[in-house]
Amino acid sequence: MTTLQKTITIEPKRKGFHLITREIVRNLPEIEEIKAGILVLNIQHTSASITINECADPEVRTDMENFFKRYVPENEPYFEHTYEGSDDMPAHIKASIIGTSITIPVTNGKLNLGTWQGIYLGEHRNSGGSRRIIATIMG
Amino acid sequence: MTTLQKTITIEPKRKGFHLITREIVRNLPEIEEIKAGILVLNIQHTSASITINECADPEVRTDMENFFKRYVPENEPYFEHTYEGSDDMPAHIKASIIGTSITIPVTNGKLNLGTWQGIYLGEHRNSGGSRRIIATIMG
Amino acid sequence: MTTLQKTITIEPKRKGFHLITREIVRNLPEIEEIKAGILVLNIQHTSASITINECADPEVRTDMENFFKRYVPENEPYFEHTYEGSDDMPAHIKASIIGTSITIPVTNGKLNLGTWQGIYLGEHRNSGGSRRIIATIMG
Repeated sequence: MTTLQKTITIEPKRKGFHLITREIVRNLPEIEEIKAGILVLNIQHTSASITINECADPEVRTDMENFFKRYVPENEPYFEHTYEGSDDMPAHIKASIIGTSITIPVTNGKLNLGTWQGIYLGEHRNSGGSRRIIATIMG
Repeated sequence: MTTLQKTITIEPKRKGFHLITREIVRNLPEIEEIKAGILVLNIQHTSASITINECADPEVRTDMENFFKRYVPENEPYFEHTYEGSDDMPAHIKASIIGTSITIPVTNGKLNLGTWQGIYLGEHRNSGGSRRIIATIMG
Repeated sequence: MTTLQKTITIEPKRKGFHLITREIVRNLPEIEEIKAGILVLNIQHTSASITINECADPEVRTDMENFFKRYVPENEPYFEHTYEGSDDMPAHIKASIIGTSITIPVTNGKLNLGTWQGIYLGEHRNSGGSRRIIATIMG
């Protein structure tokens, strides 16, 4: 069994959910060597998230962003952590609701995702900048 | 160290949360060979979820379903992803809130869960059909 | 590659989010032996959670607690699981929203977290007592 780790830098994206499956796979040709194992992705930020969801209809990502905009609103009167901007505290909350790490099975050299599954980056800041993901492959 | 992967098919369940610990364990006798390791479960769908929660009182699962029914409601006026039915977009949101993957420690041939912990399948569609879970055992 | 498992007991904490990175690292000197691998943390309870979020400003933790207090409220009229107290069912819901397991990359003997990332324990009961975490190191 082997373990490989790599840092993947995702270029800045606007606020919202973004499908990054191809970008991840393109950065990890080593996956092709793994017969059975796992890929662990950790985003190294606290105001962005990573999750698995539908890869077909982009409206799913728009609706998801609009849902979280309403249910994790900005400018809640009780927020104390406000000095980094009104988008910051909701971004932290979304990071813990959605998650900052995913583990994906790898089988016969490919990510073993369901037909409609893709990897989403959740950018929760208005100007989050580039986002760093640590990829750990074991198998 | 070894890695084993298997597909477990869960028969169709009605909308709501379902305790599937026994079903998972029954399908994975190989766990008994693992002295120290992990079991990674990935549900290969985007409208169902998998999580760990209380295994004793079934009312916990009912209350959880009713909570999510209210807080991730159907027919939000801003939803654009509507062609698959009013239960579909909320199902996608729940899948990312609750998660589609869990990692459980395996110790001395058993799942090392707390006394009151069990594995829940969250079925978020009215008629989700059978659900496929990829199990990866490493240890 | 090796696998190591250990139980870490976190002393009772008041309701809210608590930064426990140092406590985890202090209990796992074995991490220093790992060149590339993962640390999986599973909290063995259904009314507490574990997540990664900002380690700098403690107001983030206060705001997060106040957010969940409002959005996963006690005494919802439809709750049936009430015999363990009004703080219990919301605690179960938070455990599945936030999560009871995290996987952190380990690189060159250290947790490979982002600059502002720390490990939070989410104590969701008024008197949760000590909390047990299973740590699995693989690498």
